[in-house]
Amino acid sequence: MSGEKGFLLTEGDLPALSIGAALLGTGGGGNPYVGMLRTRELLRKGAQVRIIPLDALPDDAWVGRVGSIGAPIIGIEKISEGGECHRAMLAVEEASGIRMAALIAAEIGGANAMVPVITAAMAGLPVIDGDGMGRAFPEIQMTTFSIYGEASLLSALADDKGNVVVFRKVTSALMLERLMRTATVAMGAGAGAAGAPLSMEFIRRTAIPGTVTQAIEIGATVLQARAKRQDVVEKVVEKTGGGLFFTGKLVDVRRELTGGFMRGHALLSGMGDWAGSEARIAIQNENLVLWVDGEPKVMVPDLIMNLEQETGEPITTEMLRFGQRVSVIGLPAHSLMKTPRALEVVGPKAFGYPEILFTPLADAAA
Amino acid sequence: MSGEKGFLLTEGDLPALSIGAALLGTGGGGNPYVGMLRTRELLRKGAQVRIIPLDALPDDAWVGRVGSIGAPIIGIEKISEGGECHRAMLAVEEASGIRMAALIAAEIGGANAMVPVITAAMAGLPVIDGDGMGRAFPEIQMTTFSIYGEASLLSALADDKGNVVVFRKVTSALMLERLMRTATVAMGAGAGAAGAPLSMEFIRRTAIPGTVTQAIEIGATVLQARAKRQDVVEKVVEKTGGGLFFTGKLVDVRRELTGGFMRGHALLSGMGDWAGSEARIAIQNENLVLWVDGEPKVMVPDLIMNLEQETGEPITTEMLRFGQRVSVIGLPAHSLMKTPRALEVVGPKAFGYPEILFTPLADAAA
Repeated sequence: MSGEKGFLLTEGDLPALSIGAALLGTGGGGNPYVGMLRTRELLRKGAQVRIIPLDALPDDAWVGRVGSIGAPIIGIEKISEGGECHRAMLAVEEASGIRMAALIAAEIGGANAMVPVITAAMAGLPVIDGDGMGRAFPEIQMTTFSIYGEASLLSALADDKGNVVVFRKVTSALMLERLMRTATVAMGAGAGAAGAPLSMEFIRRTAIPGTVTQAIEIGATVLQARAKRQDVVEKVVEKTGGGLFFTGKLVDVRRELTGGFMRGHALLSGMGDWAGSEARIAIQNENLVLWVDGEPKVMVPDLIMNLEQETGEPITTEMLRFGQRVSVIGLPAHSLMKTPRALEVVGPKAFGYPEILFTPLADAAA
Repeated sequence: MSGEKGFLLTEGDLPALSIGAALLGTGGGGNPYVGMLRTRELLRKGAQVRIIPLDALPDDAWVGRVGSIGAPIIGIEKISEGGECHRAMLAVEEASGIRMAALIAAEIGGANAMVPVITAAMAGLPVIDGDGMGRAFPEIQMTTFSIYGEASLLSALADDKGNVVVFRKVTSALMLERLMRTATVAMGAGAGAAGAPLSMEFIRRTAIPGTVTQAIEIGATVLQARAKRQDVVEKVVEKTGGGLFFTGKLVDVRRELTGGFMRGHALLSGMGDWAGSEARIAIQNENLVLWVDGEPKVMVPDLIMNLEQETGEPITTEMLRFGQRVSVIGLPAHSLMKTPRALEVVGPKAFGYPEILFTPLADAAA
């Protein structure tokens, strides 16, 4: 097997993947921790999951997409049973008559980084090193696959009780989002989703590449810095090529669950270099916009990552608590997320901020 | 073809079927008029629809169920395109691998009496003389098929835009109701539904028999009495074996659309024999309970049918208007709807009236 491309995921990779995915979740996407434990259990029982690069499979190979769907605030209490996405994938295979050759994450950010790994372990498939967001976003049509014109919207949803719903024909990605979101609420606000098979040729053109590896590397940076008692935030900024945009104490947080989403905002009072300044972060499952003293500084689709200042622990929006000391790192989104076509779907205007013109962060790696 | 059982539905039957179905709709089920026009068009174009009795097909023949789903108050503006239920039925056939030999109405009351006829005309199938309610009810698990333990809940929903959702595996009828209801709302509050194939053996044990014929006969009674300038209400009471429970003027009506249902109540001020009395009718899409001077007189699953006093025109709950003169006829439900098992699902308690003990109307025909 040594001649195969990519690498076998090891138990040792999992804590790093979990932390890195949570950071790329930009506050949302749910906590990958439970999924990490489940993956570890599967690996210990002998499952093998290979992470393969975008050039490992031929153009006509079919790739399945899986991910959990639901409000993350529910995710804390309603822990996924683990087989939901596998059952959803099998339903898509049955309805389409197509067998998958590999899986890919719809979103690398948060719990959905781990979901394809769990499903792959159950199905005996490899996982593509890449995803459809390079982060987390609250709606399923916000993937590059959807933005760049996936051919079919056939999808399926499965819950932990045994319910399976197949979206056999769907007229638009927005309609699929509505149908899936309402079905998820009917299922108790948490379900596993599988999308239509995508050809490897399409994946190569549209996936955000290398994001599984990126998540593992970011997580490893956090863990190493902690072990060496270094400044975690500084190391993450170095590793990712992002920038530190604010450090402050959380003085107010408002959240409400409406229509399957958690919406709200957090207020931070500046510390250190930002003493006397105030920051506000708008939330819809994920961190959407960071304002410092009223000025928008980082905005979707660029990434706004909140870290606990001391430990570098990612702070998801449902874990925001009064008094936390938070470092806010901004990271440029991948160029596939910043085309005019993509910004129509994932830019500030699409999230209800028409007054904010998207101003991309300078990409240190570019 | 003359040796075949049942009868070919003629254009002349349609106005009677439409009026009879509206009356059996007990205020709900939507108005069959548009479906009647669509059926007439199909018959004029040469479609033939045979209405067959319960003993026409062998035990192992498979029967499909179709019906529109949605809030009737929406139905007025969102007119079904006609092919929704046919597409839903085809999706069930595809997912189950079973071809239907006939169709049956899930509910004879209201627009859903006409829907299987339209679908049958499109699919080239006969329609069984019977249904799963003998009336209309607001929720899909309120059919005798569901009450008496249909084996599979596989179902599909299609809208007028081309969206098709398949409920591939469903753990309970209540869950199916929730999933279908929320998907219908996502589709714009109106869709065509198809249920799992039922064996003819099961249909024979559980369907309310003869209700297509019954609807045609009731409607014909109304039309004949009108033509002969007879008392329409009296003739309907005679024909159906029901009773006249109130005549009065509509003095108040409250309706609101919540969670896909229209809920509310109507108040009537007595006239003639009921001068000085007051009646109240509770509504959830259909008429649920009739109180006269505070006493519950007729209650689900027995039928409460409101007729315009002069013309005998059925008054659906969305057509209730201040000042209307209304005759309220009560009609005993079929015995399959009054077993303890059925009452758990369609009795007063199931509709939120735990204080009302179901007291069946005396069945004149029994």
